[in-house]
Amino acid sequence: MSHPFFKNNGPLSVSEISEYLNIKNYKLNSDQKIEDIKDLLSANNSDITFFHSKKYKDIAKSTKASFCITTESLKNDLPKHCNSLIVENVLVSVSKLTSKFYPESINDNFDETAISISETNFKDKVKFGKNVLIGSNVSFGSSCVIGHNSIIEKNVNIGNNCSIGSNTIIRNTIIKDNVRILDRCVIGKHGFGFFPKKNQNLRYPHIGIVIIEDNCEIGCGATIDRGSMSNTVIGKNTYLDNQIHIAHNVKIGENSIIAGQVGIAGSSVIGSNVKIGGQAGISGHLKIGNNVEIGGGSGVIKSIPDNTKVMGYPAKKIKEFLRDNK
Amino acid sequence: MSHPFFKNNGPLSVSEISEYLNIKNYKLNSDQKIEDIKDLLSANNSDITFFHSKKYKDIAKSTKASFCITTESLKNDLPKHCNSLIVENVLVSVSKLTSKFYPESINDNFDETAISISETNFKDKVKFGKNVLIGSNVSFGSSCVIGHNSIIEKNVNIGNNCSIGSNTIIRNTIIKDNVRILDRCVIGKHGFGFFPKKNQNLRYPHIGIVIIEDNCEIGCGATIDRGSMSNTVIGKNTYLDNQIHIAHNVKIGENSIIAGQVGIAGSSVIGSNVKIGGQAGISGHLKIGNNVEIGGGSGVIKSIPDNTKVMGYPAKKIKEFLRDNK
Amino acid sequence: MSHPFFKNNGPLSVSEISEYLNIKNYKLNSDQKIEDIKDLLSANNSDITFFHSKKYKDIAKSTKASFCITTESLKNDLPKHCNSLIVENVLVSVSKLTSKFYPESINDNFDETAISISETNFKDKVKFGKNVLIGSNVSFGSSCVIGHNSIIEKNVNIGNNCSIGSNTIIRNTIIKDNVRILDRCVIGKHGFGFFPKKNQNLRYPHIGIVIIEDNCEIGCGATIDRGSMSNTVIGKNTYLDNQIHIAHNVKIGENSIIAGQVGIAGSSVIGSNVKIGGQAGISGHLKIGNNVEIGGGSGVIKSIPDNTKVMGYPAKKIKEFLRDNK
Repeated sequence: MSHPFFKNNGPLSVSEISEYLNIKNYKLNSDQKIEDIKDLLSANNSDITFFHSKKYKDIAKSTKASFCITTESLKNDLPKHCNSLIVENVLVSVSKLTSKFYPESINDNFDETAISISETNFKDKVKFGKNVLIGSNVSFGSSCVIGHNSIIEKNVNIGNNCSIGSNTIIRNTIIKDNVRILDRCVIGKHGFGFFPKKNQNLRYPHIGIVIIEDNCEIGCGATIDRGSMSNTVIGKNTYLDNQIHIAHNVKIGENSIIAGQVGIAGSSVIGSNVKIGGQAGISGHLKIGNNVEIGGGSGVIKSIPDNTKVMGYPAKKIKEFLRDNK
Repeated sequence: MSHPFFKNNGPLSVSEISEYLNIKNYKLNSDQKIEDIKDLLSANNSDITFFHSKKYKDIAKSTKASFCITTESLKNDLPKHCNSLIVENVLVSVSKLTSKFYPESINDNFDETAISISETNFKDKVKFGKNVLIGSNVSFGSSCVIGHNSIIEKNVNIGNNCSIGSNTIIRNTIIKDNVRILDRCVIGKHGFGFFPKKNQNLRYPHIGIVIIEDNCEIGCGATIDRGSMSNTVIGKNTYLDNQIHIAHNVKIGENSIIAGQVGIAGSSVIGSNVKIGGQAGISGHLKIGNNVEIGGGSGVIKSIPDNTKVMGYPAKKIKEFLRDNK
Repeated sequence: MSHPFFKNNGPLSVSEISEYLNIKNYKLNSDQKIEDIKDLLSANNSDITFFHSKKYKDIAKSTKASFCITTESLKNDLPKHCNSLIVENVLVSVSKLTSKFYPESINDNFDETAISISETNFKDKVKFGKNVLIGSNVSFGSSCVIGHNSIIEKNVNIGNNCSIGSNTIIRNTIIKDNVRILDRCVIGKHGFGFFPKKNQNLRYPHIGIVIIEDNCEIGCGATIDRGSMSNTVIGKNTYLDNQIHIAHNVKIGENSIIAGQVGIAGSSVIGSNVKIGGQAGISGHLKIGNNVEIGGGSGVIKSIPDNTKVMGYPAKKIKEFLRDNK
């Protein structure tokens, strides 16, 4: 997990956690302190972890965590030193507990810490328009400009020679050098992630951030959501045209070119030197290889290997698309 | 018709109306006062109504209205007490007369009544960012927050525990409890409705509003147009992702989930528990049943019965789509 | 070329130009002054021109320019009075030199000249909301209104009876009479044009503008990019719905109707009386005739002759589309 910007509200005691998650099997009223919630691999003995699918069995066996949120049917794969907290739905419980450790990762209300840039030390460092607001935990490199009415909300690091347009809102984001972000973008808000429940869905926390690497350009009106468990990343020298939507956890490689109104659904990984035509859509959890070209308007619903040109809905090899549509 | 927020400029005299609509058949220079324009069913004897298609013949026969805008060929289906005003194009005349009764329903210029929230009584009730503006006829429940630069224009009722993001603009809208509206939305403006005319189209009035029910979430950059004759409704606990467009008169049921960049054209009715994948489009005047699932990128051009999964352009049953695209 | 709004930084001396473009073949250290860079046809003897493809051979032969950026293999088609400057990639060199002549055409940072409208002479002429900013070289006709937080950046001429919404940003644009531009638009920014280069793409200058003719309506959230070498034009009485993207150099005729979320890629030319359904996409460099109807969701990848109805992806005649999808 990656949450440099979210304050850990821990430690929490085991009894506090048990009560919060309504754990039945763990009777012990323990005062033991738990520092953080981490995945099976990253957790150490002061953390709680979670195990929700057989496919992580091997990692589960060697986890260092002292406590693990899991199910009755999975608990026997955990090592002896790891106490299991049995729940009905592991991911729902993880979501709840993550929100407890990182309360700021679930609340995306407007940033109350934002004040006028002219009341900050940046007023002499950054060139800025009218009505620019800056939140807490923001930094700028040299030679940056920010347009009118833009809001650099809390938790944003901006490198050197960056240009932010007007009416743009950014939070929970690392922007490297020579990046241009045009007007009216919204970057770093939580993604469209929740557990559907009748009458009131349960939103899950987003403890990832957005990283925009050197020399990128982000077109007008982009929405780039921050990651839920990992980060959303736009690789070096990748250019996005206007009105693009990049969902949570998406990773895009270097030197890629993405035309207007494209949408990339959650957790898909796009390679380097990829070209995506206007209005194309890419489903979630796919892997698009390097040097791939995707024709405008395509709907990509399967992963695509390196060096492939595709087009169509569903997208297929461009030769087949042209042959089938003569 | 439903126009709680639009001031009725009436009554208008029959002679005023006749002159305004350039009525030839109705010579009488009557001072009789007409209170409102309503549909055949709702109108009473102080109202004017309209009748433009044979399919409303049965309702026409029993209308209580004293006057009716109609055509030469339809007028004989009206009851004796109802005087017909003969026009060439009924809907164009209705549009003109509705604008006359409700002048604010045609003019969507910026709201001149909006003032800084700190000059209103809400300054102690609502938590708000910088540069927030509030128009006339606005109300808030308890525990609401509004982000920076947002404008709650005239005619907006907001319930309890609502969060409005930054750079968002709302007018002519009822928002119930626990609703979250994210950044950069525009809600309640007139829809894309007009009679095409060479050199200068004739826009028609929008006297409907937008209603967003309890527990909804509206993603960044949404545009939700208010209704023309009926309302635009987002049902309880329905979640919209980023960059979605909902046209005038659309009704969406409860517990539905709509992914990024979806567009729903005017007057379509979407059921409850519906899932719509990213970038899908739904044509106007369709009926999408309950528990329907529409795959990402689909183009829906026909109504869909309950409990159906569709995908494709044009959308068909998902089994057929997958079979045809093996 | 058409660049009424961009200040010409010339004249530049031939030796300056040669050095800037790293010209090897042109040894002469000439002080001769060059006024401007123009195409083969427009250039006169104080200008530099460019010649990059055999298909312009006939125009090249009669150019009046004294200097021409070209390649070794093309130079012999130039007239004797025209000195060739040999480069590897003509368009890249033209792009660089155009940026040198017109530095403001490459830099789209926020407009530093913008000040509060209440500090300008427009404060008594225009009806305006809170926090409206006006840049240099802006003019208004009579009876205009501008909504809250909107920014009329530099180089904008607005005619009579125009209504600009709230949160809208406009620069480098001519708007004629009776035009309505709704909320949250961004108009006149540079297009998505650059030469892809590893590690750092080379953006090319945009010296065109946007022209919006009489009686148009531009929906909420539109992005309309200005032209690179020619202008982007929206013809008289053409209506655009919400969330539309119009790329650089696009020309749209009169009385056309374009529904929500449509995207038109760079340099396509759309006729008059054209109807385009929601979410349709049109590829770049196409010609769409007059009276064409394009169904919602279509992907148009070929030019379309006058009076044709198409639908599908790729778009075909609507009869074929319906037959193939029965």
